[in-house]
Amino acid sequence: MKSFDITTVKFNDQGLVPVISQDAETQEVLMLAWMNAQSLQETLETGRMTFWSRSRQAFWRKGESSGHVQTLVEMRIDCDRDCLLALVEQVGPACHTNRRSCFYTAIRDGQEVELSQPEA
Amino acid sequence: MKSFDITTVKFNDQGLVPVISQDAETQEVLMLAWMNAQSLQETLETGRMTFWSRSRQAFWRKGESSGHVQTLVEMRIDCDRDCLLALVEQVGPACHTNRRSCFYTAIRDGQEVELSQPEA
Repeated sequence: MKSFDITTVKFNDQGLVPVISQDAETQEVLMLAWMNAQSLQETLETGRMTFWSRSRQAFWRKGESSGHVQTLVEMRIDCDRDCLLALVEQVGPACHTNRRSCFYTAIRDGQEVELSQPEA
Repeated sequence: MKSFDITTVKFNDQGLVPVISQDAETQEVLMLAWMNAQSLQETLETGRMTFWSRSRQAFWRKGESSGHVQTLVEMRIDCDRDCLLALVEQVGPACHTNRRSCFYTAIRDGQEVELSQPEA
């Protein structure tokens, strides 16, 4: 075993790394978002999934305004150290469209098929 | 239902979109790689997962040299249209280290823990 050193994560030229959030219980892939070193540090310290919003150029503490909090169960890193997989507990929908997962559109025979509806 | 139009995918400034490969049967997340428009088109047409290798700057037909082919079961796109989730059938290990998944390292209490060993 070795200590995890955040400087060994390969952030891209914008200082960001993609993070896949997967439901720890159902294994459903919920979303992909981005973290910089500071938001990764905060996530590991607090257990609250904290991303970097590329559109707002600001920290994005998931669920801070919506209440749809995402709690870290386990963080994993890939072989190239340039992508993270977070197993999480998700309160309510992960997607801003109010669906559980952001990946609700399938491409079947050249057509787009909606797999889920917004939660009431 | 509407037709899927590849030009509506939001490729980044390098013309790439991240693609999560998930085992369609076990739901294990296997890897994350990148596609450009042409490799996405080829993937949808052939059912063989075809990425764009950023290191080699070339098409990467998964399994072409290793035999560890990845076959598309269903392609999904997220709400922002800037990330894809591919449900796949994976022959053998997905990772170049010969492990089933690239995400074999967990971060637990500040330590790195290896979750799986290379397949024999």
